[in-house]
Amino acid sequence: MNRIGFVLKVRQDRIDEYKAHHRKVWPEMLAALREAGWHNYSLFLRADGLLFGYFETPHDLATATAQMAATEVNTRWQEFMAPFFESPDNARPDQMLMELEEVFHLA
Amino acid sequence: MNRIGFVLKVRQDRIDEYKAHHRKVWPEMLAALREAGWHNYSLFLRADGLLFGYFETPHDLATATAQMAATEVNTRWQEFMAPFFESPDNARPDQMLMELEEVFHLA
Repeated sequence: MNRIGFVLKVRQDRIDEYKAHHRKVWPEMLAALREAGWHNYSLFLRADGLLFGYFETPHDLATATAQMAATEVNTRWQEFMAPFFESPDNARPDQMLMELEEVFHLA
Repeated sequence: MNRIGFVLKVRQDRIDEYKAHHRKVWPEMLAALREAGWHNYSLFLRADGLLFGYFETPHDLATATAQMAATEVNTRWQEFMAPFFESPDNARPDQMLMELEEVFHLA
């Protein structure tokens, strides 16, 4: 398993809606993530909208993202979520993930 | 197990040294973390020094930090690491952790 960390930026004025949607993520989106090998996946939010993602996968981030991108439900979810993020030209958030370098790990 | 996410800020001009020290964390520091219930603990770094920490613990962050603070090796490690962080008055990094809110989790 690889451990992946990434950041995104949620628009500060839409944080409450973003959180509400993430309390009820579509079951078919959750199923697609599981099938694409996204495990132990958490999203953490800072009060200013900085969003940190952590998950574990047998793949690398590019492959894990590509496997999701091949699903129809991911296209719908990313288009639904795009307005909640700070991104140029309302880009899909899954195309904006900035991967972080893991510099320490203790099992 | 609780999942904890936090952020800190490493001084950009000291990132290389910070990374080098984290490739060889003192064995007694690793042992103290394990004994204090810090599991699956990763640190992720962005190029500008933003540092994201993730770990799993039977405790909350305050308790996990307090258990480490009670050890002599942690005092030495935090004083060693303090100059690598952006913090007022060279505060110990373990007193500067900003906890993030987990807004989503998929097992």
